[in-house]
Amino acid sequence: MTTPSAVSGRPVAPPNGWTDPPCPVARAVDLVGDRWSLLILRDALGGTRSFTDFQRGLGVAKNILTDRLRRLVDQGLLERRTAPSGKRQEYVLTGSGERLFTVIVALRQWGEAHAFDAGETHSVLVDDDTGAPVPRLRVERSDGAVLTAANTHVERLA
Amino acid sequence: MTTPSAVSGRPVAPPNGWTDPPCPVARAVDLVGDRWSLLILRDALGGTRSFTDFQRGLGVAKNILTDRLRRLVDQGLLERRTAPSGKRQEYVLTGSGERLFTVIVALRQWGEAHAFDAGETHSVLVDDDTGAPVPRLRVERSDGAVLTAANTHVERLA
Repeated sequence: MTTPSAVSGRPVAPPNGWTDPPCPVARAVDLVGDRWSLLILRDALGGTRSFTDFQRGLGVAKNILTDRLRRLVDQGLLERRTAPSGKRQEYVLTGSGERLFTVIVALRQWGEAHAFDAGETHSVLVDDDTGAPVPRLRVERSDGAVLTAANTHVERLA
Repeated sequence: MTTPSAVSGRPVAPPNGWTDPPCPVARAVDLVGDRWSLLILRDALGGTRSFTDFQRGLGVAKNILTDRLRRLVDQGLLERRTAPSGKRQEYVLTGSGERLFTVIVALRQWGEAHAFDAGETHSVLVDDDTGAPVPRLRVERSDGAVLTAANTHVERLA
């Protein structure tokens, strides 16, 4: 079963409309800026597919999980389909869902740097081929200069 | 006025504790994975400092804005201080708040690609020096190979 969005790839506004229609940050936040949605997407990127496994991994109440999975399907981030075994339903990332990898990596790297005390250990995202931790994301110009909030600004298109 | 967290740089767990303590994604989401918090941080990165300007920019109810600003101060992402004019309070990003720039850029770039129809225009993040749009973030190995959820995995440290 696929949603119209998952088929067409067109974005689906949330039921109450977009908070700030011309802003891509706000649209992204309208779609995924929710604690449980972000953690469901984290686990989906890690390979979780069944309701039971999401529930076990997150420890979230079933009614909340049901609601968030339905929203993510309605918005075209997950696709609900019958597992190859034919025995159960599973939730699989769509293309736009998969591309949230960068957002999840950005959250992870910020968390590693700013949400742990010196003595605390945390999980690490590792390159399958080399076994090395994934290098830090850098916002940079094509010549390699680092870009920050201090040397960039937002322009509204006409 | 600064919080203990803003002074020491140590992370402050949310009142209900961490959802998934060893996971940096989950800790980041516990701290900033909320629609209004993310939009407040977006505007703070764009230079907004006063309660009035946050309220005008977001169109959020004052009680919600008050709550989210207090949480962001308590967690060391914003610092509340008296404006140089001495006349009003302002909210200024701490170092860890400023480093959420990468997260906000990742959300923006995902939104640009997946939350707009072909005919719709959106705001653009631009390099002050060149006037060019900020290039896309790439998760990549030191040799430039692209990393995705398919060729990375999460390892729990001992």
